[in-house]
Amino acid sequence: MGNTFGHLFRITTWGESHGGAIGVVIDGCPPKLAIDINTIQAELDRRRPGQSHLTTSRQEEDRVEILSGVFDGQTLGSPISMLVWNKDAKPSAYEHLKDVYRPSHADFTYQQKFGLRNWQGGGRASARETIGRVAAGAIAKQILREQCGTETLAYVKQIHTIQAEVDSDTVTLDDIESSLVRCPDPRASEKMAECVDQARRDGDSLGGIIESVSRNVPVGLGEPVFDKLKADLAKAMMSLPATMGFQIGSGFGGVVGTGSQHNDPFYNDDGRVRTRTNNSGGTQGGISNGENIVFQIAFKPTATIRKEQETVDIDGNPVTLSAHGRHDPCVLPRAPAIVEAMTALVLVDHFLRQRAKTLD
Amino acid sequence: MGNTFGHLFRITTWGESHGGAIGVVIDGCPPKLAIDINTIQAELDRRRPGQSHLTTSRQEEDRVEILSGVFDGQTLGSPISMLVWNKDAKPSAYEHLKDVYRPSHADFTYQQKFGLRNWQGGGRASARETIGRVAAGAIAKQILREQCGTETLAYVKQIHTIQAEVDSDTVTLDDIESSLVRCPDPRASEKMAECVDQARRDGDSLGGIIESVSRNVPVGLGEPVFDKLKADLAKAMMSLPATMGFQIGSGFGGVVGTGSQHNDPFYNDDGRVRTRTNNSGGTQGGISNGENIVFQIAFKPTATIRKEQETVDIDGNPVTLSAHGRHDPCVLPRAPAIVEAMTALVLVDHFLRQRAKTLD
Amino acid sequence: MGNTFGHLFRITTWGESHGGAIGVVIDGCPPKLAIDINTIQAELDRRRPGQSHLTTSRQEEDRVEILSGVFDGQTLGSPISMLVWNKDAKPSAYEHLKDVYRPSHADFTYQQKFGLRNWQGGGRASARETIGRVAAGAIAKQILREQCGTETLAYVKQIHTIQAEVDSDTVTLDDIESSLVRCPDPRASEKMAECVDQARRDGDSLGGIIESVSRNVPVGLGEPVFDKLKADLAKAMMSLPATMGFQIGSGFGGVVGTGSQHNDPFYNDDGRVRTRTNNSGGTQGGISNGENIVFQIAFKPTATIRKEQETVDIDGNPVTLSAHGRHDPCVLPRAPAIVEAMTALVLVDHFLRQRAKTLD
Amino acid sequence: MGNTFGHLFRITTWGESHGGAIGVVIDGCPPKLAIDINTIQAELDRRRPGQSHLTTSRQEEDRVEILSGVFDGQTLGSPISMLVWNKDAKPSAYEHLKDVYRPSHADFTYQQKFGLRNWQGGGRASARETIGRVAAGAIAKQILREQCGTETLAYVKQIHTIQAEVDSDTVTLDDIESSLVRCPDPRASEKMAECVDQARRDGDSLGGIIESVSRNVPVGLGEPVFDKLKADLAKAMMSLPATMGFQIGSGFGGVVGTGSQHNDPFYNDDGRVRTRTNNSGGTQGGISNGENIVFQIAFKPTATIRKEQETVDIDGNPVTLSAHGRHDPCVLPRAPAIVEAMTALVLVDHFLRQRAKTLD
Repeated sequence: MGNTFGHLFRITTWGESHGGAIGVVIDGCPPKLAIDINTIQAELDRRRPGQSHLTTSRQEEDRVEILSGVFDGQTLGSPISMLVWNKDAKPSAYEHLKDVYRPSHADFTYQQKFGLRNWQGGGRASARETIGRVAAGAIAKQILREQCGTETLAYVKQIHTIQAEVDSDTVTLDDIESSLVRCPDPRASEKMAECVDQARRDGDSLGGIIESVSRNVPVGLGEPVFDKLKADLAKAMMSLPATMGFQIGSGFGGVVGTGSQHNDPFYNDDGRVRTRTNNSGGTQGGISNGENIVFQIAFKPTATIRKEQETVDIDGNPVTLSAHGRHDPCVLPRAPAIVEAMTALVLVDHFLRQRAKTLD
Repeated sequence: MGNTFGHLFRITTWGESHGGAIGVVIDGCPPKLAIDINTIQAELDRRRPGQSHLTTSRQEEDRVEILSGVFDGQTLGSPISMLVWNKDAKPSAYEHLKDVYRPSHADFTYQQKFGLRNWQGGGRASARETIGRVAAGAIAKQILREQCGTETLAYVKQIHTIQAEVDSDTVTLDDIESSLVRCPDPRASEKMAECVDQARRDGDSLGGIIESVSRNVPVGLGEPVFDKLKADLAKAMMSLPATMGFQIGSGFGGVVGTGSQHNDPFYNDDGRVRTRTNNSGGTQGGISNGENIVFQIAFKPTATIRKEQETVDIDGNPVTLSAHGRHDPCVLPRAPAIVEAMTALVLVDHFLRQRAKTLD
Repeated sequence: MGNTFGHLFRITTWGESHGGAIGVVIDGCPPKLAIDINTIQAELDRRRPGQSHLTTSRQEEDRVEILSGVFDGQTLGSPISMLVWNKDAKPSAYEHLKDVYRPSHADFTYQQKFGLRNWQGGGRASARETIGRVAAGAIAKQILREQCGTETLAYVKQIHTIQAEVDSDTVTLDDIESSLVRCPDPRASEKMAECVDQARRDGDSLGGIIESVSRNVPVGLGEPVFDKLKADLAKAMMSLPATMGFQIGSGFGGVVGTGSQHNDPFYNDDGRVRTRTNNSGGTQGGISNGENIVFQIAFKPTATIRKEQETVDIDGNPVTLSAHGRHDPCVLPRAPAIVEAMTALVLVDHFLRQRAKTLD
Repeated sequence: MGNTFGHLFRITTWGESHGGAIGVVIDGCPPKLAIDINTIQAELDRRRPGQSHLTTSRQEEDRVEILSGVFDGQTLGSPISMLVWNKDAKPSAYEHLKDVYRPSHADFTYQQKFGLRNWQGGGRASARETIGRVAAGAIAKQILREQCGTETLAYVKQIHTIQAEVDSDTVTLDDIESSLVRCPDPRASEKMAECVDQARRDGDSLGGIIESVSRNVPVGLGEPVFDKLKADLAKAMMSLPATMGFQIGSGFGGVVGTGSQHNDPFYNDDGRVRTRTNNSGGTQGGISNGENIVFQIAFKPTATIRKEQETVDIDGNPVTLSAHGRHDPCVLPRAPAIVEAMTALVLVDHFLRQRAKTLD
């Protein structure tokens, strides 16, 4: 019962990386939205493997199919079921992992929790699981754009030790997409690409930081006290594979300022109450305040590497493992599409929740 | 609908800081637990204001009453309703804040979202809201202790720029409680106390970092893909007032290592599979792996300060505000009880969820 | 986790009949509603025991207190906590029931499920549990009235073998309240009162049927496929103590007609699409169609009677029981307030859900 | 957000009758169950149209495919996604219904609620929607059978005015399946078949009553106060298309007895506490008591008939409609599979809930 997310715009995802297919059911999507399947496909294309030599060599077209909930190009208000078939599945490539626990992967915990696991490629713990999130997120983004003019972007802020300089107020989708690693700082982007390529050749892997910005978010989203906007965003992001941290606004760095330095002064900007700084990252009291929502997510280096590692097998015997087969040296370049999707899913859910309780 | 937390061990909190009372209803607590109200009270005492000169001067006894769900000292399996009356409420002390938005407080967003607010002391955005969480958390802790031997501790890791050295594997409750600021590193503790006292005198405020460790957590807690243990912990912590970040295990610092450096090697520890390092922070694939669960939370400096600040009033007019009345220069010393409670609530919920699906 | 009802307008009830108090927390109530505590009290007065010689002799004032969520007479949008203290609790009167299972009461199943029970007066299975529902329902009714002009009424349609004739289109609250047993058919009302009085003297009890009508319900409430309006109404009613059946529109009687007889023909009533008959009871496809919502609920005779009964004690020994102490020969006269409350709770929840998904 | 059912064993269904496919996602199914797809298919075969000349002429093989959650024949503990393709869809057959509201069908309310509808065959309001329920129910039945020895059966108790005599304690699946209309009383079965055939020839339709019995249900299932077993069963049944009533145990008929007649006396049956009668229908206080759970559901006559009917079109103009194309004169013969599925889904959900809160 952990595969559903959202309260009013609710998604349920399903599928293993090497089962028949991967999919999502959206329940609660408002009716009469014009759906363009190409827009959804475009988001999946940003997420899919094999976009460049820097990512996993798995070749998947990830072609989305809509099986319900859309009629004559419009949403019906009934559940929208979408799926992507697993095509380039090579279970045999995982045969050598069948009885071995990859360090820092989900092999051990899945085996312990469930008593068995689909050892073919990570099963439900694979990054392929995010396909359903991205497909649903594309529709969430559309609602936000059409209803509020909200735009959500995410980009690579750091890979390994290379940090980018990005102005979150002005960065564009084009800035992001024009970079091989989806880092809108061209100088950093180039270094990151080299760095990832080196990790690939080394059979090693790299982590990094994704930054997300949402602009034109309506004031008033977020439900105290548990479903604060920052809380739901944190959950959304920390539910992604490989995430190790979430921070909003000033985050961990903000703890060294005093209140008088850290507080965001209000001023009247031509009739609209705004803040001079945005240390709050766009939410106060757990509710959006109309400023940009800015947060960061830490991704650890991918667990599956080719380098030799100490581990144990399923019987507890010591084993030296060097995973062969596919190898994804860095997930960061594919992460922005996923982070944007999750952000949009949180925002649209709260947008609908706020509508519900705002009486005429 | 944002005031309920948990799936099987579910709490609903209610109450404004200056309404009649603050309370919680626990639904889903297993029957036949022996309840000692003093244990619950002891946790509330760790949270309450006025414990030392370093915290807010509000004087509240915060005496808990159990109104239902317990009979002859045992839980009935029915909802447990607990409350604490607001006694030292001084609405008049907040009169000057009635029409002014405190910078980085919830005043503005509550007013915008709800169209009105209880301006007496922060209403629902007050730290008093956490009373219900702490009372419920005391029972969650008891279940974990009795059923699994799990111990959850939290302590101050950093205030302002002062960082403590703490060994999360060995730190004890006594180590924590013997410090005025609840920092188990005596050298740091002393400096922190001075620093907070200075902020109090300055009419300013300080932030910091809380670290949480849970030991003897059963393997297998956490429900992929959305209700991963790290995701639910992140949500729990980011639902607390003033939190700006959450990181587990290596967190943001972990992004600079490579996979071969960051992965936690498995080994056979006398029949039990363990990891040599704990960069994962006790969860892999979103599921507890039996190692200590270690995470950190960033708290910003308290928003309400005595120092003069630029802001606007409810009509958008520029105002210079210096909040008088009570002033809490640093919430960190009172935060451990709250963080422990939220950790226990997440763990016990997942403990029950795992029981449900483990068939004989 | 079974003490919460509703999705957007969500109530959590708590309290045993002889614990300290009985209460409810409403989460999701829209802000800025003007709350008149007397209106809530009036509904509780219709539910409370001791209104006439026909009902239980328990004397409870059932005075409601609002502890949170209301400020300056208006809802804040935060949880509304309300409670009623148990005053006329006489645990000693139940001493003889401590180790005996009353036939058809919840004693046996509670003992088996939970391993213990509050034997003082039925605990959570007591009709007192409905106090929280009625208090919350009073606010739900207000929202429906103010937002949609919806009126919900319930009345006694049958007690024992005495059936009333009532025109659900025209019956008024006054018609209902002017009857001692809350049956708006004066002739039947008189007979029913006699009949209940006889049962009281016999130490026996009677069941009956409540009918509910809701007028001016907006078209479009109800969420296929599981949260159909009729499904949520059925659950609401069957969650009440002593209920044995629910039927809407033509109900069980409707199965003998053919489709051509049973279908409700549509016609154009001066621009509004209406149906000539209302066998559907106001919903089609699980969604309200704008006609009156009419349903009935069967209540079995109260389980606790003074007459001698065969049963067993907690050790399985055969026992002859004649319950003494309080005795309520018929709950029907007090049921309308409860049924109206549950109906209003379902309707207002669906009203908010429909608002959420109706985009501009 | 109305397409998910269950708390721990949770199903989400999707699909229109003439969209691409119909399906279900089960979240919360315990791991390591051996899944036999033929068992699931067998249940779908009991539900599918075209089993005899008495039902709809739609020809659908309804071949189920499992797309996730099962590996090497065992459940993984991850979501189980199943679907059935719509093959014999003839949208053109519905062209004449595009702009007309069928009386007592969901056409009008869907159009009003959503602002559009899939007019091809009923869309989401079609009986095809129950395919996902039946597929999921097959797995629920298996868990109940393997874990508790629970058996759930449903059968036709009445069609039109023809009532069957059935002993719910002894009736078998074979008794039911050997009847063309799934009525285990051979004499009534024959009459019912004639009656349905006549309705088919008349272009009319018939309703009736399904009875459900569950044997060997563990004591203790059901969660007071809102998630009482009878309440969740009522919701499950009233969420089915065409249902108009639910009654458990003595139901509406039970209101005419007095308490002393209606109460079920407890006795000691060789160490097990049982009741001499079962007016309670297997639950007391909302919790199963170990006796058979027996309830009935009223189904109205199918709304779509060939006979001429008065109605209006989408613009409100009066229209005389005689629906042509497929026609199902009576859904009762196909209903037992659906009712059994829903019963099993409720029971297994409560079985898991009860496990969760029963500590060692």
